[in-house]
Amino acid sequence: MNQPSAKLAVGIEDVRAAAARLNGVIVTTPLLDYPLVSERLGFRLLIKAETLQITGSFKFRGASNRLLAAKDTDPAARAVVAFSSGNHAQGVAAAAKLLGFKATIVMPSDAPAIKVANTRGYGAEVVLYQRHTEDREAIARKIAEKDGALIVPPYDDPYIIAGQGTAGLEIVVQVKALGTVPDLVIAPCSGGGLVGGVATAVKDAFPNTAVYAAEPAGYDDLNRSLAAGERLPNKPTAPSICDALMAQTPGALTFPIHRKLLAGSKVVSDDAVLDAMSFAQRHLKLVVEPGGAAGLAAVLAMRGELKGRTAVVICSGGNADPEMIKRAADRGDPLL
Amino acid sequence: MNQPSAKLAVGIEDVRAAAARLNGVIVTTPLLDYPLVSERLGFRLLIKAETLQITGSFKFRGASNRLLAAKDTDPAARAVVAFSSGNHAQGVAAAAKLLGFKATIVMPSDAPAIKVANTRGYGAEVVLYQRHTEDREAIARKIAEKDGALIVPPYDDPYIIAGQGTAGLEIVVQVKALGTVPDLVIAPCSGGGLVGGVATAVKDAFPNTAVYAAEPAGYDDLNRSLAAGERLPNKPTAPSICDALMAQTPGALTFPIHRKLLAGSKVVSDDAVLDAMSFAQRHLKLVVEPGGAAGLAAVLAMRGELKGRTAVVICSGGNADPEMIKRAADRGDPLL
Repeated sequence: MNQPSAKLAVGIEDVRAAAARLNGVIVTTPLLDYPLVSERLGFRLLIKAETLQITGSFKFRGASNRLLAAKDTDPAARAVVAFSSGNHAQGVAAAAKLLGFKATIVMPSDAPAIKVANTRGYGAEVVLYQRHTEDREAIARKIAEKDGALIVPPYDDPYIIAGQGTAGLEIVVQVKALGTVPDLVIAPCSGGGLVGGVATAVKDAFPNTAVYAAEPAGYDDLNRSLAAGERLPNKPTAPSICDALMAQTPGALTFPIHRKLLAGSKVVSDDAVLDAMSFAQRHLKLVVEPGGAAGLAAVLAMRGELKGRTAVVICSGGNADPEMIKRAADRGDPLL
Repeated sequence: MNQPSAKLAVGIEDVRAAAARLNGVIVTTPLLDYPLVSERLGFRLLIKAETLQITGSFKFRGASNRLLAAKDTDPAARAVVAFSSGNHAQGVAAAAKLLGFKATIVMPSDAPAIKVANTRGYGAEVVLYQRHTEDREAIARKIAEKDGALIVPPYDDPYIIAGQGTAGLEIVVQVKALGTVPDLVIAPCSGGGLVGGVATAVKDAFPNTAVYAAEPAGYDDLNRSLAAGERLPNKPTAPSICDALMAQTPGALTFPIHRKLLAGSKVVSDDAVLDAMSFAQRHLKLVVEPGGAAGLAAVLAMRGELKGRTAVVICSGGNADPEMIKRAADRGDPLL
């Protein structure tokens, strides 16, 4: 990978190279404009709907970029293995299917049923593990050795970060087409590949735009790590409905990007996330999963300071189980 | 209005004029591509997401076109009145608010709460009536006389039909950008403004594409009228969850368009509509209301004959009450 800034694992050239590689493979997701909803909110809300990406989350971008790069360097590569609570699992499984790899995915036994079913539906072999007692990375390494498979990590890989960053490049093109420059861009954050890649693209085009991460309460490792200047862990058993955002620390490769480019990380409660999912159902007509709605929850809490401004919110995934869709539907209307 | 075909109320020039008038007023809704969902279905499914139009349905197009045309001919026009079960109500209310008109909307007392609340939220005065005992058109005429207001009918007006047809013009541009020509285009149908306008645009560009209406069981007046060659009514008290599709007969202006341009009308049951809403939640990540999902329900029932083909499905509205969202979430996965 090119490293235009010696200290960072990924630069704008890597994101551009990923976009070229992914052209025709990924879906260019829409940047959705809701003028009357914005008027009621008091700020312009633009939604980057990664829920509409192949597999229902942004993860397909990074996974496809990783596998295409592997094909470039080793045309004989045939097998991949990944560990994931669900969206990366689906991203890798679908990319493997489309690009001709055998995929084995190590998933926690308590992953949402829709994510396990979809991962199997894309043809991957699923190996379940106990989240709090077994080491998923060790299980993946064992499979990788047995199959001679490439491990596709969820975020700490330059190709993964650059692939997720292509969502940021699309945002730049799309806001330019709307004739505006966003004051704020916010993306949900677990290991930080998405927000790191997106910040790389957005800050290159719009240096004055503030890029934020959004994290769930209990998994606010990036918020605390940014304050401390070092990577701090979460309590591994903290409860959260944001099953997609439960990484234990910021990534070794992503954290330096976050420190350099992010304006900060906003922490949101489960209740705020459910309200954001309800808001998305009622006003945006989108199904967003809990982790995918963290950025939306954050901006809904920032209405005062966003007055008159323009915010781009990445809704990063839509793989919500029916029970969670119903829990959100049962909330009142956050706009009333 | 121009009448390039002497027999029809609307021609392609009228739809093009509407598109020019609506430029910058409406949202260009995305045509969504889901490659892996399409692979599982066995045909290419492209979704025209009118759920993402301002007010959550296509109705904003026709209403805005009607009001802008009124301003052209009478700059002093200031008040409008409309009767509608909900989506046309919201479309007229929002267009009135944005274009500087006072709006009064006559709505049935059993309209979904979200539609009544949103119509009021856009600043319109709402007058409720009893669906089976009162005459909404008479109530609207009385208000129009009192206020000197322009009646904005839901479908039987050339500007309304042409405005809805702009969704079809967008489809033409969008499928061309994808490098394909659809075999089938299908749109939900009540009075038939949407499918009439869309057929006008689509058949002009793609004469070999089959354009279908989709109607709910009990409100299959177009299906029966096409067979009979004359406008036949529905039984006014037939039960249906498709609150948006309960017009009593095809329109006087729309029916000649349907007869000339449509390949037919597909009739779908409440169960098929709920399954389509569940399919949209799970696989498309979209909230679609019952009436808005009628076209989707129809193509899901046509999987056999669509094998290897390309279908554009208009999801025409997303204003579903939470209870209906939950009923759909409780259905199984129609793809399993």
